[in-house]
Formats: sequence, C-alpha cells, structure tokens
Amino acid sequence: MSLLFKHLRVHQVFGANTDVGKTILTTALVRASAFTKSGVFYLKPVSTGSMDVADDEHIKRYTAPWSDHVFTECLYRYQEPVSPHLAVKLAAEQNGQSQPVIPTNETFITSIANHIRECARKTSRTSDLYVETAGGIHSPTLSGTTQAEAYRPLFLPTVLIGDSKLGGISTTISAYESLILRGYIVDSVLLFRDNYYRNYEYLQQYFADRGVHVASVEAPPEHLPNPQENFVSTQRYYDSLLTPDAEEGIFSSLKHLDQCHIRRLEELDSMPRRTLDNVWWPFVQHGSVKDEKDVTVIDSAYSDYFSIRAPDKSASFQSSLLQPQFDGSASWWTQTFGHTHSSLTLAAARAAGRYGHVMFPKATNLPALKLAETLIHDGPGKGWASRAFFSDDGSTGMEVALKMALRAYSKRHNLDRTSQKSLGVLGLKGSYHGDTIGAMDACEEDGVYTCEWHNAKGFWLEAPWLSMRHEQVVVTVPSSITGEGEPITYGMMSMASTYDVEKRLSEPDELATVYRDYLERTLTSLRKNGDFQLGALVLEPLIMGAGGMIFVDPLFQRVLVDVVRGLDSTPAKSGWSGLPVIFDEVFVGLHRIGMESTTSLLGVFPDISVNAKILTGGLVPLAVTLASKSIFEAFLSDNKADALLHGHSYTAHAVGCEVANETLALIKKVTSSEEYVQAQQLWGAGPGRENKVWSLWDPQFVEKVSEMDGIVSGVMALGTVLAIQLRDSKPGYTSHSAEAVFKPLLLPEEDDWTMFSSPGGAPFGVHYRTLGNVAYFMTSLTTSSSTLRTLEDKIWKILQVHDQQREI
Amino acid sequence: MSLLFKHLRVHQVFGANTDVGKTILTTALVRASAFTKSGVFYLKPVSTGSMDVADDEHIKRYTAPWSDHVFTECLYRYQEPVSPHLAVKLAAEQNGQSQPVIPTNETFITSIANHIRECARKTSRTSDLYVETAGGIHSPTLSGTTQAEAYRPLFLPTVLIGDSKLGGISTTISAYESLILRGYIVDSVLLFRDNYYRNYEYLQQYFADRGVHVASVEAPPEHLPNPQENFVSTQRYYDSLLTPDAEEGIFSSLKHLDQCHIRRLEELDSMPRRTLDNVWWPFVQHGSVKDEKDVTVIDSAYSDYFSIRAPDKSASFQSSLLQPQFDGSASWWTQTFGHTHSSLTLAAARAAGRYGHVMFPKATNLPALKLAETLIHDGPGKGWASRAFFSDDGSTGMEVALKMALRAYSKRHNLDRTSQKSLGVLGLKGSYHGDTIGAMDACEEDGVYTCEWHNAKGFWLEAPWLSMRHEQVVVTVPSSITGEGEPITYGMMSMASTYDVEKRLSEPDELATVYRDYLERTLTSLRKNGDFQLGALVLEPLIMGAGGMIFVDPLFQRVLVDVVRGLDSTPAKSGWSGLPVIFDEVFVGLHRIGMESTTSLLGVFPDISVNAKILTGGLVPLAVTLASKSIFEAFLSDNKADALLHGHSYTAHAVGCEVANETLALIKKVTSSEEYVQAQQLWGAGPGRENKVWSLWDPQFVEKVSEMDGIVSGVMALGTVLAIQLRDSKPGYTSHSAEAVFKPLLLPEEDDWTMFSSPGGAPFGVHYRTLGNVAYFMTSLTTSSSTLRTLEDKIWKILQVHDQQREI
Repeated sequence: MSLLFKHLRVHQVFGANTDVGKTILTTALVRASAFTKSGVFYLKPVSTGSMDVADDEHIKRYTAPWSDHVFTECLYRYQEPVSPHLAVKLAAEQNGQSQPVIPTNETFITSIANHIRECARKTSRTSDLYVETAGGIHSPTLSGTTQAEAYRPLFLPTVLIGDSKLGGISTTISAYESLILRGYIVDSVLLFRDNYYRNYEYLQQYFADRGVHVASVEAPPEHLPNPQENFVSTQRYYDSLLTPDAEEGIFSSLKHLDQCHIRRLEELDSMPRRTLDNVWWPFVQHGSVKDEKDVTVIDSAYSDYFSIRAPDKSASFQSSLLQPQFDGSASWWTQTFGHTHSSLTLAAARAAGRYGHVMFPKATNLPALKLAETLIHDGPGKGWASRAFFSDDGSTGMEVALKMALRAYSKRHNLDRTSQKSLGVLGLKGSYHGDTIGAMDACEEDGVYTCEWHNAKGFWLEAPWLSMRHEQVVVTVPSSITGEGEPITYGMMSMASTYDVEKRLSEPDELATVYRDYLERTLTSLRKNGDFQLGALVLEPLIMGAGGMIFVDPLFQRVLVDVVRGLDSTPAKSGWSGLPVIFDEVFVGLHRIGMESTTSLLGVFPDISVNAKILTGGLVPLAVTLASKSIFEAFLSDNKADALLHGHSYTAHAVGCEVANETLALIKKVTSSEEYVQAQQLWGAGPGRENKVWSLWDPQFVEKVSEMDGIVSGVMALGTVLAIQLRDSKPGYTSHSAEAVFKPLLLPEEDDWTMFSSPGGAPFGVHYRTLGNVAYFMTSLTTSSSTLRTLEDKIWKILQVHDQQREI
Repeated sequence: MSLLFKHLRVHQVFGANTDVGKTILTTALVRASAFTKSGVFYLKPVSTGSMDVADDEHIKRYTAPWSDHVFTECLYRYQEPVSPHLAVKLAAEQNGQSQPVIPTNETFITSIANHIRECARKTSRTSDLYVETAGGIHSPTLSGTTQAEAYRPLFLPTVLIGDSKLGGISTTISAYESLILRGYIVDSVLLFRDNYYRNYEYLQQYFADRGVHVASVEAPPEHLPNPQENFVSTQRYYDSLLTPDAEEGIFSSLKHLDQCHIRRLEELDSMPRRTLDNVWWPFVQHGSVKDEKDVTVIDSAYSDYFSIRAPDKSASFQSSLLQPQFDGSASWWTQTFGHTHSSLTLAAARAAGRYGHVMFPKATNLPALKLAETLIHDGPGKGWASRAFFSDDGSTGMEVALKMALRAYSKRHNLDRTSQKSLGVLGLKGSYHGDTIGAMDACEEDGVYTCEWHNAKGFWLEAPWLSMRHEQVVVTVPSSITGEGEPITYGMMSMASTYDVEKRLSEPDELATVYRDYLERTLTSLRKNGDFQLGALVLEPLIMGAGGMIFVDPLFQRVLVDVVRGLDSTPAKSGWSGLPVIFDEVFVGLHRIGMESTTSLLGVFPDISVNAKILTGGLVPLAVTLASKSIFEAFLSDNKADALLHGHSYTAHAVGCEVANETLALIKKVTSSEEYVQAQQLWGAGPGRENKVWSLWDPQFVEKVSEMDGIVSGVMALGTVLAIQLRDSKPGYTSHSAEAVFKPLLLPEEDDWTMFSSPGGAPFGVHYRTLGNVAYFMTSLTTSSSTLRTLEDKIWKILQVHDQQREI
C-alpha cells in the first residue's frame, strides 16, 4: 500500500507517451536532486532493450560526479526493446520456456515497495527517490496490466513527462486524465520546450487552470554518432540545465516537488485537529472522543484496504507514515469489489459526461431504464416485481416502501385520515430500517436508538435466532413464542439443514408448528386490539443487521409471511394478501450474504423490496424500491394528489444508475467465478447442490470459533459476513465489549512481515465496527482467500488469548 | 446539439494521437461505404498544411471511382502544418491582422452542424457521413479548446483510430478514457496491424472486456518518392482492403458501425414503452399518463440543454431525431453550470479513483474535511456555524436539522419522552422540506401533499408575500395578520427597497410594527396552548419553493426570528435563544437566487441550516447540515445513546464531497465574472452598491410581464429564478393552468432558425415544471445572456397571446 516517508521524497515518473524524453528529464531531476540533497535514489522497475541503452545506465553515466550519493537500481531487465508484457514472453521463448514465468502484479508491486522501504531504511538524511516507469502511462507492465493500474496500490505522487511533439498536447492531457481517473496526485508536468509546436505554452495555461505545476526545459541536442562526442554534448546539455539561469526549469520543478511533499506531510498532520474542530460525525458520541489519536485519517484507499496515517507511536523516522488497514466493515456494508475499482470510476465518468443529472419525472434516460429493467427482470425483483422507484439511500428507499404499503392497505380498506395515521407495521424486535424518522417509526423504540420525534407505530415480535455453538447451529426460541419461562434452544445440526426452509416446512418439524400456532394466536389477538390496525409486514430477511447481526430463524420468517398472507378470510384474487409484505434487503441483498435475494431461500416473494448499499458497488448513494403490480395500481387514479408524492432532487441520477449497472454486470462475473465455486464447495454449496448457504469465511474456522465458549457465546457466517457474539454480562448496543476485545486488530503486528497480503506487502491493521457485544467482519465480494485466511488468523489469535483468560 | 438521422449514419473519427493513420483508415471507411451505400459524405472541419497533402484531397483522390456519390468538404483550411489553434494565428499574422479573427466554438460547431444537416437534407438514401477531426482527441481546435471538449455539443458517435506504434497501447487507452469522461459513445477502435508491437492483439482483448469493437487492417505500404508510383501503390493497398478476404478488417468495421446505428435508433424508439412498463416516476400520477408521447427520452445533455428524442410528428425523414430542449427547471433546481461540465466529471473521477467511498465515523478524508471547512469558514456558515454534518439529500439534511433542534430544545427544558414526541415546530403555511416523513411532519397537512403517516407537528403562520404588478412590488398581508376581513396589499416601490430589511426595520415602517404585534400576540397565545410545545422555528428563507414559489416578505421572516429569539425571559448567555432556528436553504442557497446565503439579506444567522441541490453542481446527491456550537454541545455526554444517532451508508462520500468542493470553487469564479457584474448592474446591484437583489432575468422583461394583468397576477425574479403566477379561478397544487398555458414551449418553433442559441444552432424547445397556477423558469448560474433573451422572448410571446385573449 501507499508509501510515504518524511525524509525520503518519492515520485513516480510517468510518460505521456513513449519517447517523450522521460529518461532525459528524470536524469535532469536526479542531477538537480544530487546537486542539492545528500541522497538520491533512482529505480527503474522494468527495463527493456539492450543494457548499453538502459535508462539506469544512462542515469549512472551522467551522475558520475555524485556517484557517492546517487544510487540506481533496476528490478526486471529484458533484452527486447518492446513493451514489458511482450519482452517477458520473448525472453522466456528465447530461454526455451514453454510456459513463461511472469511476475504477478502483486509480486511486481511488492518488489518495488520493498525497494522503496529499503531506500528509506538505508538513509537517514533528506533524500529523493524517482521511480521511472516504462513507455506511456497505460503501457502494459509484465503481467499485461497497464502501468497506471498496476502501480496504483503504491499511490505514489506523480511527475508526468509531457509530450512536446506534434499531437503532444492531446497525449499529455489524455495521460493526465487517465491518471486522475485513478486518483493519482499529479504534482508536476515536465516537458521539453519546442518553439515550433509550443506545446509547453498551451499546457502551462491549461494546467494552471487545473492547479498543476508545469515546467519546461530546453530539448537535448541531437544524438551524435561518435559515442565520446555524444557523451560530451549530452553532458554539456545536462550541465546547462543546472546553471542558475535555468532556475525556471528543472530547479523550479525540484523546488515544487519538495514543497508538494512538505505540504502533503503538513496536511496529513493537520487533518485530525481540523476534523475534530469542524466535523460532526454520524453515530459518534463526540464527548467520548479524546484527542487526535481517535481520528483515522484515510489518505486513500485501494482494493479492500484504507491507507491510513500511521499513529504517531509507530511512525518511526524510517517507517512509512501511511499504513494499510483492512476495511473490515466494507465501509458500512457498501464495498463490493474493494475501493477504487476503475470500472466503476469509468462508469461514473461516462454517465457524468453524457448526462450529468437529468430530470426524471415523465422522462427517461438509458442508465436509469436499464437499471429498472435489470432489477425487475434479471435481479432481485425477478418473478414478482413490476416497478422500480428510485431514491437516495436505504432509509429513503424504506420510506418509499412504507408509503407504498400503507397506501395499498388504506385504499383496500377505505381508511379515513385518522385511521391512516395510526396504522402500524408488524415487524421483529431488533429490526432497523434507517435513520429518517419514518423509517425509525417502523421500528420499536428500545430507549437507546431513538430521537425526539421517534414514535414507533406497530407491533414487534421477538424472533427465534440462530447461532453456531460447538460446531452446531442452535435455534434460540424466546419464551414469548414457546410460552415457557425461559428461552429454549434447539440443536439444528448443520447450516445446510437449518436453512433448508422448504424441507423444514414439509417435514414434521416441531418448530414450524410452534411458530404457526404462536403467530396465528398473536395476530388474531392483535387484530382485536382497537388501538391501531396493522398496515404492513416489514422484515429484514435472514439477518437483522444494525440491530446486532441477529441471524433470524428463516423458518420463522417464512411462517410469518404465510400466516400474514392467510389473514384475509377472502384473499384478494390477485395481488397482495393480508398485509403488503416489505423485504428490507438493503443490507442482505445483492450477494452480501451469498445470494442475490433472500426470496429463493425463504421460498416467498415480497410485495415490496428495497435495495441500496451494494447496488452502487460502494461508490455513490442510490436506492431502489421494487413493487409488485398490485401495489403500483393502488396509486392510479386521475387525481394528481393520489400519486406517490415522493421524489428527491437527484432521483435516478445517471451517475448512480450507470455505476449500479456496471456493478450488477461485474457481480454476475464474480459470482460465477472459480473462486466462488471453490469457496461454496467448502460449505457443500454451489452449482448443482441443494444447500444454498455458504460463506467466503472458511467453515472450519467458523466451527473452531464456535468451540471457544470461554469468550464466544455464538458465531455465524453467511456470504461475506462473519458475526461473533461475545460473552458479556451487559450486552446490547451501548456495550463496548467487542470494541475492546478486538482493539489489537487496529494496528498491524509490526514485526510480522510474513503474515501479509495487503497490496505492496506490508503488514496490515484491521478497521472494524462493532454492535455492542457483537463483532462483525465483512469483506467485499472479491476479497482474496489469502486475505481472508490472514484475517481468520488474526481474529483467532485474539480470541484465543481471551478464551484462555476466561477459562482460568 | 446532438444530431441523429435515420437514413444518414454519422460518425466522428478521432485519433489516439496525430500520425496514427487517421486519414488512411477514414479513407478506407469511406471507400467501404462507397462500395456498399448510395451516398457517402466526408467532412474535414479543419485542415492544416498545404492543400496537396490535405486529407479531403486524399479522400477525393482515392475515391475517384465513386465520385458520383462521394462528397467531401473542408470548412476551415490553413497552410501551416501545426495545431489549428496556432495555424489560425499564424495565418492571421501572415495576412497582417494584428487581432486575429478566431471562430468561437459556437460558430465552429454550428458550421459543422449546419453541414451535417445539409447532408441529411441532400440525400434521401441510406448514406454515411464521416467527420474527421485533426490530430489527437485533445488537440486544440481553432479557439484553443481541445477537440474532445469542443465537439461535445454534437455528441456524435465515435470511431477511435488506435495507435499501432510503440507506446500506442497507452495513447489509445488514454484517448479512449478521455472520450468516456465526456460521455461519448465509442462504437469502434480501428488501427493498423503491426506484427512487431502487436498492439492490436492487446487492444482487441482490452476493449472486448469493455464491450468495444476493435478492428485492425494491414498497414499501408511505405511512401514512394515518385508520385505516380506512390499513387499506384496506395491505390493497390486500398483495393486490397476491399477484397472479400479482408472482411475481417474494414468491412467488419463498417458492418459494426451500421449495426450500432440501427441499435441506437431501435433503442431510442423502444425507450418510451419500456419506461412506461418498468419505471415508477416520482410525483407523477401514472393514471394520467396516456401513452409513449408523454415520455421525454433524454438521450444526452449538454450545457443547459437536454438532447431529446423528437416527438414523432416532428421527425420528418430528413430532420434530426434528436432535438435540443432547454432544461427550464435546472433539473429540479440542481444544475449549476449546465450539464456535463467536465471539471465536475473529473472531480468525481478523481475522488472515485483515490478513495471510492470510505468510512466516515471517527475517520476523515480530504474532500469531506475541505468541504466542511469551506462551508463553515468561507461559505454559508461563515460567522455562525461550527459543525458540518453530512447526509444524502435535502430531505435527510432537514431530518438531521430537526433532530438537532428538537434535542437542543428538549435538553434545555428537560422534557420527558411524551413531551418530546409532541414537540411542534413553528413554520409558515406553504413551506416544504422534503419527502421523508419527518421532513413532511415539519410542514402543515394541506390535504393534498400528504401520505398515510404524515402527522404534522407544529403551527404554521400565514405569511405576507411579494409580487410584482405593474412594475411595482406589492406585499400582500393576510387578514390573519392585519385582523382585517381581507388581505391587504401594500405597494413597496422597488425590489431594492423591498429587500432592504435593515432599512425597513430602522425606519418607521408600518409593516414592521404590524408584524411584531401580530407575532408577539400569536406566540404568546401559542405558548399558553397546552397541546404541544414549540421546539424549533423552521423557515425557507425568502422563497418557499415547492409550495408555489412564494416570495415571502423578508421583513416578516426577520421580525419572526427576532420575536422568537426574544421569547426567553432569561435568554441563554450564549447559543440559541427562544427556539433553535433552522434555515432550509436547500433551494435558495449557494447563489440559486443571486446570493450565497440569505443570512446577509435577512440580517440574522440561523442556529442550523441545510444545503443540498447546487452543493454538488447538479451531479450526485449530497447534503450538509450546518450547526452552531451550542447545538452541537447539546449532544455531548459520555453516553453513546446521547449522540446524534443518524448516518447513511454513504455519509460524506468522497465523490460527492470532491464534486462539491469543485462546485464551490467554480461558483467563486462565476459570481465574480464580468457577466455577473453586468447583469447585476441592470438591477442596480453588484459590487459597491447597497442593493443586494438582482436576477439573471432582465428587469425590463420582468416589469413588462408584470403589466400583463390579463393573464399574469404577479411575477417575481431573483437570481436564476423567474416565477409567474397566472390568473386562475382554482389555483393551487392540483391546478394545471400553468402547464397548459406554456405547453407550446416544449417544442421548438420549427421554422424559426433565426431565434436560436442552443449549441449547434438548432431551434430549441423548453422543458419546464409548474406548480399549479405558477410557472417558474430556472437557469443554471452560467446560462448565457443570449439564451436568456431567447427564453424571455418565447415566454413573452406565449403570455401575449393569452393576455390579449383574456382582455377581450
């Protein structure tokens, strides 16, 4: 991951094209650094072409006067003067290898990172390091990935060598834009001064408008055939760039790069204080925030990792000021393919460039239309949904769902305004649907998560829940259901059999009967209650997330839907029956828990459902509420006031919709990949098997954790989610037990350089969120198995310490 | 604007760089078209270099066999073989011009558009047109703007000529990405087959993954010194590309381009039906949607214009299937610099590439931190705000504001849960704060805009409102305030004096006393009311937008704030007093109505305010709630449950924050521009003047409209907003009078090619939204004065017809 050192300024040098003078200008920079600094490093990660014209040799030759403090290195060298991805293959062919051994991006980037770290360790003086890439910014590197992509994990600030030839304005600007698309900090554009094409004049103005420094220097003399004469002429050229008169050019660049480095350090250092002074965080008790150490400064992110400002204590002089930290809550359950996936960036850019945001009522645009169609016909709405309504987030999506359901109910039962206002929802205790007040009102008031206007409307049942203990899934059934004094636990054996709802329904399962009897009894008595009518059933299917990662017994939710739909003595001929059923799939939907929608597992369709979070791959907010035909029809009339009077300024914004389309397309590829099939097989799930539940977490690891009953009271895993419930005498939302137990995860284990898998090879910490006494860990859909195994190892170590302590 | 013809397929040809074989491959395409189609057009908008090597001459030379149906054209020709922006200057110098006359982008693009339209008119047969650009995609055109930017209004589908040389993989991919950033449809990449560098192999795979067609053809033979021999050899090369064996190459491209064209037409035609079948629109009574004609298909957008699918009746065989339509509601009040401003696209891309979305609680990232700082210290919060809280849209921003205010009030007055729940807000009748239920509950139930759970909590006063009639601003004061039987109107003379709140307060203004007496009396009696306590004052300052563009008398709002703050007999030593005051500036803020915030005009600061809409320049959703120190402190304790328990998945998402930062920076430039100063001067406002109110709309036009009392009952304009209230026997939200009157605006006046100013020179229609009997028209902050004058003319013409009718 990102490397940043106080004493060692590092810049990568990218070229707008090949043959734009990248090596010459880098040599000029190295010489200028050598002239003013006590240490200069030059790294050419890959060199192609014969040794005598190699860039690092060129650097050596022309920095000879400073050879005591100029150090050059080349990591991969190939003879053929072609793009590295071809050169490595040709070299293999020449060596008679039939299967060329090509370094992976991870190997390649780690070797660069290791070299940079070595340079930082080697010098304690203020030094500079230049990493010169090969060809143009998107020239493929060894693996075939383009350099701009492959170098991204290192997130090094960039010097872009501009193109001074005819056409060079275009290639320079395009190269710059490709760098911006990957979030790179472009500190400087440097190019030759060509007085016929005058690109430098144009680019100076162009980039000044964009806050980017441009410097130009005289072009080098022509190459002379006689090597000695050529050396002298070139030497003279380089020397001319170092005269005080030339301060405009290469020295101004050097000074600017130094300033950029210093400003970046100062900015990073200032961010905690400035944040504490200006920001009001969501869900944070600022009264408990002690000082700057409590602020995680995220400098950038890549894949599943944040790159964070290292806490002061670990920032020794020679170690990187930036550290990788695994994003263990998938940034509030949104990350899908890890951060900064360039397909999503390009999708966002494409829609921004074609539409911006365009008006949606009575209008249409391709990204929004395609998204609606995909969700309805080839997504979570398949088989039941007829309409897609767009809003901004899970909470607004749920408000829309509630408006839909309550209207459908009111209209069928001809309710007056007073009865409408007092309509209640039927739900489960522990559910959560968002933070706008309407969404809150669909949840019980528990006295903790509340606000002044929170006025819960409805009735919430206690739900039986699942957890794995001693390698067995057990169902804990609350006493309100069984009628016994204490909750009763039932061993269910395997995950597969627990989640086989159809089988449990069709076979004489004691619980199905217990649930049905309880629910019929309870709903009958609720209907007699004169205080309010129930207008909707609202469920988070399978897992109640924010309420504490409660894995609800799916059989209970299925029977609940069945019983609710049987409420009408004369059910509707078509459409919803009993109560409109809302599935809040904001958290569980779109493969977060290993399935596109929970409907296939539960064996029932809702009348309304909501998707958000993963919908946009973890980039920008967007929510979609899906509805069946009969729900939609409840709003049809010739009176505008009967319409669904809900809309946000950016309704169906093209950027969000296009990113969602890209996300759904990528998810299709990911979920049919070999990695997925393998992970599913470990759980006895996957193509051709009846078992529908599985996880990216190793089943053996989960089982092992379920044995640790000194500290763990239960564990569950589905899809990307691992939830560990800790023993706690005062459990619940305000408990800090999980946060405290897992605190050592935050920082990497400094000395353990063997257990790594962050891009760039550094040990990583883990950013995690807890819910009282429940710790959960959530990966993206594409987290590598090596990262998962490392995480499991880290979690295991921590639990073991506590488990043993409690056992004593 | 966008041009699309059924019978004429048009593609623009962009080069990844200069000298990549753009003209040769275009010639190959033209020949292939000539071989199969009955008409082929070739346009070289700008040619630099001597005539004998000009691209159009080359085309002519090698399409001689089909000269009866191949037509070439060049619009601007310069001798010097340099970039057009230099060539035009050099030509002027050579002609002895001291000030070279350089065609503007508008002139340039209009001349291309006119040529394309002419080609479409000239042929009734299936034909192709190729527009060959100069140099690379970002090479500057005549004005200095890069081509990829300058050509964007035409939104032509693109053939990208790839670069087959060393480094060409990089330049091709970067060029492609720069095109994507501008939303272009890239139908095909075409390049030479070079068997040493094999770029085509790499690019074929690369673009296949991205759904882009790649074709390659043999490279041409070397240039021969003898012209005749060279002609023969070149001719033979071109002929070789047309043999059936070569179907892989140029013919596959041609076939693909034809298919792309047909698919695009089919897609456009299918979109209305598909939308009607799948989408649930916000605020639309689907029962009143008759058929496909009611669906506005937005194919793309640029500047202030949508490019819409032309209604069937106007789509004659030879006219463009796409028409410009002015975005007359600024896409629900969001557009700031017009659509698809590339600075905003790049800002979005930059943040997506650096962060994606990253976790915000207890964390920080630069875009979010900078935005918070700017809003607090150099934006609408300057002078009073201390904290920024992020959410997703105006409605959620207001829910956050309400949670803040009600908590501050409850805490100071030690309210129990029952009293908290029944807390009410003080507001004005006609206000609107969003569609989530909490935001709705802060507004009165008017029986029209409502939903089942809407349960308004508070008291709403009738407000005196302003309108211009007969060139004079009048205040209409409701009878509830005056105590008279009828509303009373007061003539106020000028806009400037009406909005000079301080002066009206300090001078003996009868109304100030009337307002104060009324408010003190009313609030005293409300406090005695035992049903509920007031917990907050909630205002849309100056204009109540969705409630009907009601321009409230600013003096009334000022006195209201003063009276509310005087409610405490012992005011708080510091912090809020009486009631926390919330300003909902979602609509009016950030220069929508010609001022950054309404606080400077009203002369009071709120305790809480909300910004959204313009905040992100019209690209993606984001809202910020600003709060003063004393509000923030009401949430401090050592108990987590006392924190502000509100947060959305994408809280402070980096893309939104970075786009907001870019927007605020651009706004600073725009609002200090010469255009602004000039527009302000017309209203007697601007730098150095006391008058703070002005509009982009011409004051004389507004005054003229105010005279039309046959149809207009009042008109007002502030900043970008023009609101016209029509005489209507049944006014209000469900009236359709404004929609009906302005219906002719939707379509361009077909024959009027003189009154245009859409980019590309076509007559344009106007997309507008109405609020019952109120029509409003809203521009972006950068709408050109020529567009504004055209709009005024169009509006004037329509009003005149009706005004005269009514007068008869």
